[in-house]
Amino acid sequence: MIHPNMATMLATVATNAAVEGDALQALLTRCVEQSFNAISVDGDCSTNDTVILVATGQGNAIVPGTDAFATLENAVAYVCQELAKKIARDGEGAKHLIEVVVQGLETDALARKAARAVASSNLVKAAVHGGDPNWGRIVGALGALGVPGLDQASVSICGTTVLNKGVPTPFDERLVSQSMNEPEVRFDIVLTGPGRGMAWGCDLTEEYVKINADYRS
Amino acid sequence: MIHPNMATMLATVATNAAVEGDALQALLTRCVEQSFNAISVDGDCSTNDTVILVATGQGNAIVPGTDAFATLENAVAYVCQELAKKIARDGEGAKHLIEVVVQGLETDALARKAARAVASSNLVKAAVHGGDPNWGRIVGALGALGVPGLDQASVSICGTTVLNKGVPTPFDERLVSQSMNEPEVRFDIVLTGPGRGMAWGCDLTEEYVKINADYRS
Repeated sequence: MIHPNMATMLATVATNAAVEGDALQALLTRCVEQSFNAISVDGDCSTNDTVILVATGQGNAIVPGTDAFATLENAVAYVCQELAKKIARDGEGAKHLIEVVVQGLETDALARKAARAVASSNLVKAAVHGGDPNWGRIVGALGALGVPGLDQASVSICGTTVLNKGVPTPFDERLVSQSMNEPEVRFDIVLTGPGRGMAWGCDLTEEYVKINADYRS
Repeated sequence: MIHPNMATMLATVATNAAVEGDALQALLTRCVEQSFNAISVDGDCSTNDTVILVATGQGNAIVPGTDAFATLENAVAYVCQELAKKIARDGEGAKHLIEVVVQGLETDALARKAARAVASSNLVKAAVHGGDPNWGRIVGALGALGVPGLDQASVSICGTTVLNKGVPTPFDERLVSQSMNEPEVRFDIVLTGPGRGMAWGCDLTEEYVKINADYRS
């Protein structure tokens, strides 16, 4: 890319365990799906993102199917997720990390896709910037993706239920708006289905536009 | 929706021709793909857009496969495209209409999809707002979509070639930036293939954020 602000993400994670290459790659792919591939700053993917997991082999040998392997995978997943959240939190002009949790839908992958659609919506991101508990925009982002069963959806904003099985719930807008002033704003969406997914994004601010429009002047 | 600013688009187009219903629906579907379905203000689809084409039947009978039908289709396509462009031009806080023309790719539908990805990119939209002839963001939006053959792509901004078959072309940045001050900013992307598609969007401005973040205060 000709502009250094066209972020190319490079992440390297290391373990001293001795793990066979294919098993390590499969582990990393699972972890990346739930971390780096679940964030969005502005929907504009860099075309050459890279995540590398290095096993130096100086420690214990760990093989798939063991408790040790599960522990390693949980550790790598945690590290990847924390790094990914830092990227979203550090988005140009961002004031808030947005965390979206979708419980329901047929598979984890579909739930993650739905969560990412909410976290990527310009209207949702602007609402977070304005401290606006606008659940219509959340449901709108899910509807545009074609998510089924929205008439039974429940939505919470920073822990307060605002939509309960498709029925708007009276809530104190001033209080919920205040809770959206925190550095992390969380949306919980509950549908019917076993899949679960999370995604992270950041709010859309005037500074984002300034940084990306006027960075050369 | 609970917020009247969650734009629901309703369009009605009428002709006095007498056309059979199925033929009229097929004609409209083709026209909508190249007009209303080819614009984006912020990537947030309304979930209940509607376009209706009414034929009153008071005029001549027109049947598919005739010159008269082709003329009718061209007329409806023109009207739909002009209406759609007005919507993009009228986007919240927008100062510019962005017109993207993709020549190349395998089919018209793929070319339209590619054009829409460019017109929808927040980074491209911010660059237009800043008068920044940033072809890297255009190619980046195409790359993120997985468009093939980008190493042979040519890109023009408001008529000035800035990338020629994959090779950056020296150009007067000040002059091209000035040409981006016009109300309409056009990007031409040429790849290898028979498909051709157009899409329209608008620039991303601080006003967009203000309108969508603080509209209730």
